[in-house]
Amino acid sequence: MTAPERFLAACKRMPVDRTPVWMMRQAGRYLPEYRAVRSRVDFLTLCRSPDLASEVSLQPIERFGMDACVIFSDIMMAVEAMGAPVSFGDGGPHIDEPVRSMAAAERLRVTDPETSLSYTMEALRITREALRDRAALVGFVGGPFTLASYLVEGGGSRSYATIKTMLYTQSAVAHALLAKLAEFCALYAVAQVRAGAQAVQVFDTWAGELSPAAYEEFALPYQTKVVGAIREAGVPAIIFVNGCAGKLDLLAQSNADVVSVDWRLDLRNARERLGPGVAVQGNVDPCILLSSPLVVSAAAREAMDAAGPVGHVLNLGHGILPPTPIECARAFVEAPKLSGLPV
Amino acid sequence: MTAPERFLAACKRMPVDRTPVWMMRQAGRYLPEYRAVRSRVDFLTLCRSPDLASEVSLQPIERFGMDACVIFSDIMMAVEAMGAPVSFGDGGPHIDEPVRSMAAAERLRVTDPETSLSYTMEALRITREALRDRAALVGFVGGPFTLASYLVEGGGSRSYATIKTMLYTQSAVAHALLAKLAEFCALYAVAQVRAGAQAVQVFDTWAGELSPAAYEEFALPYQTKVVGAIREAGVPAIIFVNGCAGKLDLLAQSNADVVSVDWRLDLRNARERLGPGVAVQGNVDPCILLSSPLVVSAAAREAMDAAGPVGHVLNLGHGILPPTPIECARAFVEAPKLSGLPV
Repeated sequence: MTAPERFLAACKRMPVDRTPVWMMRQAGRYLPEYRAVRSRVDFLTLCRSPDLASEVSLQPIERFGMDACVIFSDIMMAVEAMGAPVSFGDGGPHIDEPVRSMAAAERLRVTDPETSLSYTMEALRITREALRDRAALVGFVGGPFTLASYLVEGGGSRSYATIKTMLYTQSAVAHALLAKLAEFCALYAVAQVRAGAQAVQVFDTWAGELSPAAYEEFALPYQTKVVGAIREAGVPAIIFVNGCAGKLDLLAQSNADVVSVDWRLDLRNARERLGPGVAVQGNVDPCILLSSPLVVSAAAREAMDAAGPVGHVLNLGHGILPPTPIECARAFVEAPKLSGLPV
Repeated sequence: MTAPERFLAACKRMPVDRTPVWMMRQAGRYLPEYRAVRSRVDFLTLCRSPDLASEVSLQPIERFGMDACVIFSDIMMAVEAMGAPVSFGDGGPHIDEPVRSMAAAERLRVTDPETSLSYTMEALRITREALRDRAALVGFVGGPFTLASYLVEGGGSRSYATIKTMLYTQSAVAHALLAKLAEFCALYAVAQVRAGAQAVQVFDTWAGELSPAAYEEFALPYQTKVVGAIREAGVPAIIFVNGCAGKLDLLAQSNADVVSVDWRLDLRNARERLGPGVAVQGNVDPCILLSSPLVVSAAAREAMDAAGPVGHVLNLGHGILPPTPIECARAFVEAPKLSGLPV
């Protein structure tokens, strides 16, 4: 099987010759060749430069040969394309004017992503052309709740107290904001498919911080809209929620083809609760890749054993960490290629 | 029933006249009378002053009439009593000399808590005497993994990369450190029972960040030791792990009488997976208490409905937040007292 065939078969729970593998944030700071590019341009410039974004997207494929190539970008680029300026510092994304009123939510614009995010479309086209069949091209969008959390909090948060207070005291504003974000993310995801993405992952990273009741009201309906658009565009939808263990039944209701599972639960447990209709992705703790190749290989093999051979995409439980040694990243990508061999 | 009878019956899954209630961190900054005390003394001085610690422990009982009174202290006082100086700033506890070697782990001392933490023992005795039967007195200790995470990281963390790297590359150091912490925490918990605590809660807050396999090796055995000591001392043991949804089966294996559940999962789901032998505590999102009394009452009632009337202690899913309005805290404590009335 070619890498795209293998990856797409796993997403659709079809037989594969071996488990496909990639790593969230695989185009990133742990790679010296990525740091070399970043020494010349800042993060936002890199996101906005199709040639450079394509170059760093391809770097891990050239070095390690993953089965999927995720396009280099940031979930917050969508927010910027809707008219909310974003800056990036050491503390992650920062929103200069947080969205905390109906008027502010109404000022966000559902633009045409072909224009407002043309650089990402171009990066996808260049990358797909360069990849040929070496890896499946994966696009991504932020989940509406997660984007809303940054917009309302003004950046990252530990407690999500500001957005949650909005959910519980100004639910009409929250729903208006979430609906607009979902509308744009659906358009953006479909545009990525037209530009060559062979699957799209929805990163609703912080929706795991909600109670199940709040998730059902404020995350699930908007995820379902984005997932539906991706599937209608003809490619698999992958959904990722960090800390998803208490909401697997709700995650399955999003109709995603693949649920990307964090490392805080066992994939056997996830399988049981998700049921047979959903593929799983994950779920090695990124911190394990700070240890040694031997420990990494064992953890990757354990994830493959837990998930079983059908409908599993080997991945981390969250993005790869910048201090990860190259040889540990390599051991992770190699693990499924060695899985037929004795341990 | 008196409040202690009600609380202890719920812990033992015996019938109660109504669901007992308290709030984690209920002696804290959301109370003006607490802030008045803190304007005169710093946090560490307050922990070390039996009269003042008792005074602030009693404040929420005087104001709201919870069924349990948790002693005012901090889990890090145990670490200090073992010889590792701790300071407290806005960013939480800070360890001047992080423990990252066998030599550093060996320097920690298993002292006699009756002496090294005599102020907490005295605070418990004074508080128990003052309470009479108005509320059950609850002591607490940190979970060994959680204390180790602060000691190794040097403070709080987002990724726990330093301690996890220790687990995966220097497991002998990690086990030596965890064993020593568990030994001291067991002694400390038993001393609290002798000083009047009628139940002891183990706050292994950050153990939820581990994979199930790492939890089983590095958290569970040490929790089990502390829980066993508490139960042998004749009082119920409560265990709290933040983000516990993926590890409920392992939490039940700690043999705790009560599992305190965070808000990220439904208590029905928790009940099912914990089985009938365990009581549950929780699990309203502390952020809900930033809204309005009406919303809080509904959320508390929903938690009681989800848990059922037997073997449930109504509580938050984590500590109450400083900006919580008094009337929302009151609505939470009142909810079970009104539960027989029409909504």
